[in-house]
Amino acid sequence: MSAHEIKKIAVLTSGGDAPGMNAALRAVVLAAEHYGLQVLAFRHGYKGLLENDAVPLVAQDVLHILQYSGTIIKSARCPEFKTDEAAKKAAENLQNNDIDALVVIGGDGSFRGAEHLSHHWNGQIIGVPGTIDNDLYGTDATIGFATAVSIAMDALDKIRDTAEAMDRVFIVEVMGREAGFIGLSSTMASGAERMILPELQREKPLTIAALVKHIERVKKVRGESSYVMVLSEHQWPGGAVALAEQLEAEYHLPCRPCLLGHIQRGGSPAAADRILAAQLGVYAIELALQGETLVMSGIQGNKAVATPLPDTWQIDKPLDPNLVHIQHRVFNPVKKNGDAELSAKNSVTNVA
Amino acid sequence: MSAHEIKKIAVLTSGGDAPGMNAALRAVVLAAEHYGLQVLAFRHGYKGLLENDAVPLVAQDVLHILQYSGTIIKSARCPEFKTDEAAKKAAENLQNNDIDALVVIGGDGSFRGAEHLSHHWNGQIIGVPGTIDNDLYGTDATIGFATAVSIAMDALDKIRDTAEAMDRVFIVEVMGREAGFIGLSSTMASGAERMILPELQREKPLTIAALVKHIERVKKVRGESSYVMVLSEHQWPGGAVALAEQLEAEYHLPCRPCLLGHIQRGGSPAAADRILAAQLGVYAIELALQGETLVMSGIQGNKAVATPLPDTWQIDKPLDPNLVHIQHRVFNPVKKNGDAELSAKNSVTNVA
Amino acid sequence: MSAHEIKKIAVLTSGGDAPGMNAALRAVVLAAEHYGLQVLAFRHGYKGLLENDAVPLVAQDVLHILQYSGTIIKSARCPEFKTDEAAKKAAENLQNNDIDALVVIGGDGSFRGAEHLSHHWNGQIIGVPGTIDNDLYGTDATIGFATAVSIAMDALDKIRDTAEAMDRVFIVEVMGREAGFIGLSSTMASGAERMILPELQREKPLTIAALVKHIERVKKVRGESSYVMVLSEHQWPGGAVALAEQLEAEYHLPCRPCLLGHIQRGGSPAAADRILAAQLGVYAIELALQGETLVMSGIQGNKAVATPLPDTWQIDKPLDPNLVHIQHRVFNPVKKNGDAELSAKNSVTNVA
Amino acid sequence: MSAHEIKKIAVLTSGGDAPGMNAALRAVVLAAEHYGLQVLAFRHGYKGLLENDAVPLVAQDVLHILQYSGTIIKSARCPEFKTDEAAKKAAENLQNNDIDALVVIGGDGSFRGAEHLSHHWNGQIIGVPGTIDNDLYGTDATIGFATAVSIAMDALDKIRDTAEAMDRVFIVEVMGREAGFIGLSSTMASGAERMILPELQREKPLTIAALVKHIERVKKVRGESSYVMVLSEHQWPGGAVALAEQLEAEYHLPCRPCLLGHIQRGGSPAAADRILAAQLGVYAIELALQGETLVMSGIQGNKAVATPLPDTWQIDKPLDPNLVHIQHRVFNPVKKNGDAELSAKNSVTNVA
Repeated sequence: MSAHEIKKIAVLTSGGDAPGMNAALRAVVLAAEHYGLQVLAFRHGYKGLLENDAVPLVAQDVLHILQYSGTIIKSARCPEFKTDEAAKKAAENLQNNDIDALVVIGGDGSFRGAEHLSHHWNGQIIGVPGTIDNDLYGTDATIGFATAVSIAMDALDKIRDTAEAMDRVFIVEVMGREAGFIGLSSTMASGAERMILPELQREKPLTIAALVKHIERVKKVRGESSYVMVLSEHQWPGGAVALAEQLEAEYHLPCRPCLLGHIQRGGSPAAADRILAAQLGVYAIELALQGETLVMSGIQGNKAVATPLPDTWQIDKPLDPNLVHIQHRVFNPVKKNGDAELSAKNSVTNVA
Repeated sequence: MSAHEIKKIAVLTSGGDAPGMNAALRAVVLAAEHYGLQVLAFRHGYKGLLENDAVPLVAQDVLHILQYSGTIIKSARCPEFKTDEAAKKAAENLQNNDIDALVVIGGDGSFRGAEHLSHHWNGQIIGVPGTIDNDLYGTDATIGFATAVSIAMDALDKIRDTAEAMDRVFIVEVMGREAGFIGLSSTMASGAERMILPELQREKPLTIAALVKHIERVKKVRGESSYVMVLSEHQWPGGAVALAEQLEAEYHLPCRPCLLGHIQRGGSPAAADRILAAQLGVYAIELALQGETLVMSGIQGNKAVATPLPDTWQIDKPLDPNLVHIQHRVFNPVKKNGDAELSAKNSVTNVA
Repeated sequence: MSAHEIKKIAVLTSGGDAPGMNAALRAVVLAAEHYGLQVLAFRHGYKGLLENDAVPLVAQDVLHILQYSGTIIKSARCPEFKTDEAAKKAAENLQNNDIDALVVIGGDGSFRGAEHLSHHWNGQIIGVPGTIDNDLYGTDATIGFATAVSIAMDALDKIRDTAEAMDRVFIVEVMGREAGFIGLSSTMASGAERMILPELQREKPLTIAALVKHIERVKKVRGESSYVMVLSEHQWPGGAVALAEQLEAEYHLPCRPCLLGHIQRGGSPAAADRILAAQLGVYAIELALQGETLVMSGIQGNKAVATPLPDTWQIDKPLDPNLVHIQHRVFNPVKKNGDAELSAKNSVTNVA
Repeated sequence: MSAHEIKKIAVLTSGGDAPGMNAALRAVVLAAEHYGLQVLAFRHGYKGLLENDAVPLVAQDVLHILQYSGTIIKSARCPEFKTDEAAKKAAENLQNNDIDALVVIGGDGSFRGAEHLSHHWNGQIIGVPGTIDNDLYGTDATIGFATAVSIAMDALDKIRDTAEAMDRVFIVEVMGREAGFIGLSSTMASGAERMILPELQREKPLTIAALVKHIERVKKVRGESSYVMVLSEHQWPGGAVALAEQLEAEYHLPCRPCLLGHIQRGGSPAAADRILAAQLGVYAIELALQGETLVMSGIQGNKAVATPLPDTWQIDKPLDPNLVHIQHRVFNPVKKNGDAELSAKNSVTNVA
């Protein structure tokens, strides 16, 4: 027999919405149709699973949704799903609906929920990584990350225009309180002068004095009149607004904040997210057909790879050290009159 | 005589930069070339005028700058220009450079500066309205306004995606502390449920209780799951961040803020701003050739119109009452069980 | 009596779709709700009216559609509507559905259809100008025009990037076979070196020799390495593709064509179109309430104005002569060694 | 010694320009500064190398260019570079300018030129893949590819809006006459119903009868009213314009063409291209410092990899078979009443 015997799958989108969730949903439904499976969607994430708020989906329902952010089956956070009662109720609903496999499109919280459910339900569970944070081990990128970076970059480009015109310092606060992926990539993509990321802050917190010194160095060495910072959320007390006020009050540096917030979750999904969503959604169905369970559908180095669900949040996913090296070292202006210590660290042999 | 005898003009961009300033500068330089005038640009606004930081401009210098925000001759705020010493110094520099007419591209602060200068210099002064705020009397729109609205609308569209996905309340803070033009237009363009504008706040400040009641009404009458607010800056103590916290703390309404800030000044200028800038820049030169002084180049109802500079900030420019009527009355959900008082006010005879 | 007694309106979108039709539909429905009217939508334009393909619409159906192009009630061209049989059938369907007034969102073809219908039906008919072509008398702009210009401008900006990099000649073909509004505005907005518009071609057709001479003049006088042309469709035999081939074959000028086509009808509607659609949709309902019929809802110089439907296609709507003057004269490079004839024509007294 | 002894590098951009070339140039210059190297840029590609049209570049020259397409040092095609005389002249100019290593940013034609030059010059040559076509072996993606896909996708999204509104067939012609990367990715990203790519055409050319049959199947099985095709250039005699005419004339299928052309090379580079350009530009300098020559700087599975220059055009780079499988098989509607042959081919065991 070429494929595991399953007939009906369920799908839900859970946690913070991510651009590309619709594209993933489309891929799941089209792949299910292709392989002869029925699809039932639970609305509003685990909340809908608890309340049996379900709707069958066929190809026609999802044909032209991949160009929109959000999720047509809605998402929600559902803290109450952590209880055993909730998981049992969910299992009951899945069973009553004859579901063989459940596809969960979401982030680490949603995958923890899935793992919790697995203790009470013996159907298959496949995760599809849908989160702008890109903080899941087992896939090079998560669905939504490319779009969030693109939106942050676009905002940073706009800020550069006015920063250059007015010779000013700006702070753009981006999402990613635990992981600096959006911060790092949007910094590199925009050519921002500084990034303040969780990973870097954990290593060595930036002082405001060091920041001001860097602003001065950039101005002096590079002759730059504008200075743009990318600040990951929760990395400065009071965020971008407070840091801007501090720079102005304590150092007389006119500085303006900008708080992107949920803008990073909207707009038309980037091409990369749509294509990734197609691959991961189809692979999720193929994993189900292969009898897999409690795995996440991911892409690593252009190959589809399944990773045990708990690994996705338990194994740390570091920032690409080469990108950090390039942004933090190579693109950073060195002192004009030599800088022995730095140049030693930066010698080419040191490059990964 | 077909044209006033002038040979050389100066131009500067001043105050907060506005998308389209480059397009206006281009139009000024191309029109000057066309009519046989020389152009000298002072960099960094009045600051450059004081320091004689000047550069001659010809057509080739400005050919393909209209697609970029910012200003290639830089802008700045210059509080010290208010003194008589400064104005005299500026007059001296203009005289030494043989300037017949000065074109000032900026907002009301820049025009006040121009008026101040006129007491010390007897050359011609022509204003070109360049500000995203659209708060200058004498022109239907100022250069930069359309772009700012477009950027705010784009952000609001993105917020709607995630608001719909998560059934949530959002607040987007936009520019315009004195005038609600950006707030009103971006609300209408995005279909936001609520706008909190200076003009409306001055009339009758919104209480948080009334706001919550409206959120509930929209949900009940329209069945809407998302609610998006546009908040003009300085219209709520602590801004969007504080209002979001208040709604969550006091009313258990999950609510997220977003602070657009200077993003509204960047990006590629909207078509409307580029075309307006072409018209106003050319008309400014034509006004100079006609011997006019202390006037602003504007467009009213598709016609080029000159307005005395002081009028531009002394005469109040109200929001379009019809737009306010549409957004605040017509598009607002009425109570299901009739609403006599409201319907009387809204009777069709009442429409301008 | 404050308002004409009507209870139920119908609405349809007809002809080539235009960005903002959804926003207009939303405004019509929300205004109807506000004034206590019921709404029935006929799908696929007049085709649906003939086939009684109708669906009732309430506020909830149209809440968040204004950010999308296309039309949720679909549009179509319907040549068979010109017959008396068709108009009678339509009248019958309107009557059977108890329709007091019909709102037609479309262009001149759709308005001719409406006028034809009026000979067979005595309900009220209100037109809302929805066409990217902007070729209707009675309104400064039609819904969709601003978006089409914005899309064409965006394409032209992209072309400029590569044209500058490669020192090349490009032709971008835009819509507007009868009217050059899109061509003129996108030329001005993008700073293209040349526009070939129906109005200009009718006056004096451009020869390829004159075009090549102009390319050389721009290069010589302005030192420009790139040259970008905007060509309205149907203004050159074989269009942009043929003209590019001709320039390359006959004059050895490497030249690349680009055919925007229906891209100009899609994407997210520009802010200007959404706001215009709100105004015109609401005003259409208010006109119906005032007992008006066979008029178009329009905006002239910021005021809502009703124009008899036949006037909208019978009275010519010229290009703004000042814009043509600016682009064609003021921004055009003059010959270095004087150009007496041209400068006379361009004297400032000659400017409207 | 940790690094090969070099002091001065040259850089040029060559062939068709690609979005991200500026970002690559910036990375090359910043990395050179970081590692203590001087940089000389030759303008207009190999043409400038022949004419010694060179300009020194330092960090300040390239700081804020990464957000723009095109190339500030201009590009050109240079067929005359193929001769030995040309290569000798180039070698002479490199020598006279004391160049140790030459970085060539371009596509396969540019790399062939580099290899040709290497027979006459003994300095180091490093290639950086800059082409929208993505047709170079040795790197997962080339600089410019992501942007081109994004632009094509954006156009296809716009087309879908109008196609849905009007129930119509559309053809969008994209770049890539030899390789279908842009075609495949933009099809997947947009959910187009059909792609006509060089690789597929070489395998089995599509007949118009088969195309029409597919259009009918999509309509019947999926109930779709719109059908959008992506056509790689040179894959149909006369291109999209001819195919549209043929469908309308022979099959009475109203169909509209759209020819993106060089739009695909412009606009603001996608985030992916900017980040890739940073990585490849820096790595190119590091390869030079390591003494490498005649290699291309590439990224494979997130790792920087050097590939011998001739391999980049001699070894075939196939389309990702999994993407072709997904788009061509999984997402394609199967016949309602079974389809034995197809379902066998599509069995899950068949998936790579």
